[in-house]
Amino acid sequence: MKIFAYGIRDDEEPSLRNWKKANPDVEVDHTDQTLTPATAKLAAGSDGIVTLQTTPYDRESLQILNDEGIKNISIRNVGYDNFNFDDLADFDMKLTNVPVYSPNAIAEHAVLMIGRLLRRIPEVDVKFDNGDFTWAPTVGKEYREQTVGVIGTGHIGRVAIQMLQGMGSKVIAYDVFHNEDIEKQGLYVDSLEELYKEADVITLHVPLTSDNAYMIDEKAISQMKDGVYIINCARGELISTDALIAGLDSGKIAGAGLDVLDHENNVFGQKWGSIDNLPDPKIKNLAERINVIMTPHNAFYTETAIRNMIEISFNSNKDLIEGKIPDTLVYSKK
Amino acid sequence: MKIFAYGIRDDEEPSLRNWKKANPDVEVDHTDQTLTPATAKLAAGSDGIVTLQTTPYDRESLQILNDEGIKNISIRNVGYDNFNFDDLADFDMKLTNVPVYSPNAIAEHAVLMIGRLLRRIPEVDVKFDNGDFTWAPTVGKEYREQTVGVIGTGHIGRVAIQMLQGMGSKVIAYDVFHNEDIEKQGLYVDSLEELYKEADVITLHVPLTSDNAYMIDEKAISQMKDGVYIINCARGELISTDALIAGLDSGKIAGAGLDVLDHENNVFGQKWGSIDNLPDPKIKNLAERINVIMTPHNAFYTETAIRNMIEISFNSNKDLIEGKIPDTLVYSKK
Ligand SMILES: NC(=O)c1ccc[n+]([C@@H]2O[C@H](COP(=O)([O-])OP(=O)(O)OC[C@H]3O[C@@H](n4cnc5c(N)ncnc54)[C@H](O)[C@@H]3O)[C@@H](O)[C@H]2O)c1
Ligand SMILES: NC(=O)c1ccc[n+]([C@@H]2O[C@H](COP(=O)([O-])OP(=O)(O)OC[C@H]3O[C@@H](n4cnc5c(N)ncnc54)[C@H](O)[C@@H]3O)[C@@H](O)[C@H]2O)c1
Repeated sequence: MKIFAYGIRDDEEPSLRNWKKANPDVEVDHTDQTLTPATAKLAAGSDGIVTLQTTPYDRESLQILNDEGIKNISIRNVGYDNFNFDDLADFDMKLTNVPVYSPNAIAEHAVLMIGRLLRRIPEVDVKFDNGDFTWAPTVGKEYREQTVGVIGTGHIGRVAIQMLQGMGSKVIAYDVFHNEDIEKQGLYVDSLEELYKEADVITLHVPLTSDNAYMIDEKAISQMKDGVYIINCARGELISTDALIAGLDSGKIAGAGLDVLDHENNVFGQKWGSIDNLPDPKIKNLAERINVIMTPHNAFYTETAIRNMIEISFNSNKDLIEGKIPDTLVYSKK
Repeated sequence: MKIFAYGIRDDEEPSLRNWKKANPDVEVDHTDQTLTPATAKLAAGSDGIVTLQTTPYDRESLQILNDEGIKNISIRNVGYDNFNFDDLADFDMKLTNVPVYSPNAIAEHAVLMIGRLLRRIPEVDVKFDNGDFTWAPTVGKEYREQTVGVIGTGHIGRVAIQMLQGMGSKVIAYDVFHNEDIEKQGLYVDSLEELYKEADVITLHVPLTSDNAYMIDEKAISQMKDGVYIINCARGELISTDALIAGLDSGKIAGAGLDVLDHENNVFGQKWGSIDNLPDPKIKNLAERINVIMTPHNAFYTETAIRNMIEISFNSNKDLIEGKIPDTLVYSKK
């Protein structure tokens, strides 16, 4: 049995080596390139492919895989919206994903962003670089003085709640679906309005749906407390960047932690030499603010997450090849 | 009744105003200067003073206070080793301190340092400043994969343990005195050697005593895991800077978070214009490292801590003036 893997990064290689060692019956070959019509032939002779990319999986590439008799595709991430299911149907291909690789990675990234904003660490860092070892004026706020509103109590939101409670924060939560444990703890408020009214810090852990695009807009922000902090480690399109900038300008919003951005593909994943060179003026505006912490969609980026992405995707691909139907199946013709 | 306060910083003024509002019977005057022979006379006509400074309280200043009939001194911090008790005895003065103002402030500072080191945030920050929005190579480690060794399970260490457990870490602890709750949880190891052997991260929360000066020396470090992280938000003299630098050089120590340093008074509290200008070569060596996070003894520096320092010190001084003996008394002749 042979699996070919696309887009393998250096940081994935240790996990890949471990998987190979644990599965000596599987031949594994890989490239650091993504799947394109130019690279599709590299998989020739394989029974399945493992892949990860943010660009679309075009029909031509899938056609070439199909011609090589490859029907089993396993992605190493969650989102499969860059596949056209009609193509998969035409070629009778099966697709698996990695639905959960490390809620902790994203939750702790959000919780760290909160602490860094509360303790004014970006300002302290600037002082440090200037050799300024005095205290004033960067006095911080403590987690335990904050009511944190967690929107979305799925895998990630629930871990974030545990962490925030450990740090001493009071947590309130909102979700369209109520989790039993969070319900028992009495953390749910009945509406987003109520959450906006009570929260000193708001952190988003919901998927992007047609209902909630730009949910954090001018109106939502106007319902929040003065001096609110907003954290988004979910999806950029949940927040209207214009409304966010206006809120930061007016001081209504005291700070933001943003791992994701509307139109982030304009800037993330690339090297610009300097913040000055960012081509998207709104993102540049945010990036220049001392009270905004911006990270390039890397909340997930931990050794644990990468290990899980490799292990789960390769195990799933092996299952498909062996004719088994793994839990991670997201498309199959019948 | 009148209280005069020395060394009041801008960030203390809101808390001071609140205390005055709540105590309209007390006249309060203050200066931003510390207590010296030149400023001691400013307190003339007061019944007590509230003060905070790191420099020694010299006999001449106390003599002037005594001549003005002032016998009640309340410091806004914990440490009173800059007083000579013989002087206090000679002048029959009473002294109070603020033994606990916010364990959370220091504990969360330590826990944030751990997360920032694990997630390689200093490196991510440099990438950000260079407009580098790619992921590699700054892959992080998660709190939940770490065994954290907490040395000292007093007020601060215990809060740190709660926070670390909330973040998902496994905690082990060492203290010469066993706290009941930590004992019940089974967290204590029997020796420092055992803690050094098992901990991926070590955080210090013990006072400096004659026994434990430079406890983290070459020998201790040699007993630790390869790639250990060391956090010190307690006292600089607990760590041998030479041994720390050697451990960082060899890679034995993967990173350090230092809010306190041996000989920190050489650099802290002042503005140097740039890290390049730091006059202490060892501290400069540490400050220049990307895997060392250094803060100028400001772990305590939160709004909550400052409010408590003001409230507890002024309440204590008022008590002394009214002839009461507050819990915070640290010196009285009989
Ligand atoms: N920054 C990153 O690196 C990164 C990585 C992975 C996931 N994410 C984002 O995090 C999100 C959450 O992930 P998860 O694993 O916790 O997902 P999940 O499916 O386990 O949980 C999502 C929760 O949101 C709730 N929800 C859905 N729509 C809602 C709405 N309109 N209002 C309120 N609640 C709503 C659901 O009921 C569910 O409880 C993902 O959808 C993804 O966008 C980001
Ligand atoms: N960085 C800052 O801004 C800041 C602010 C306040 C306090 N501190 C430091 O934090 C330390 C701890 O503060 P706390 O309020 O938790 O004190 P605490 O007195 O409540 O607790 C100290 C604990 O250390 C234990 N201990 C003493 N000597 C020990 C030794 N040799 N080995 C192991 N355990 C030992 C004691 O039994 C006690 O449980 C203080 O002593 C001070 O040095 C730093």
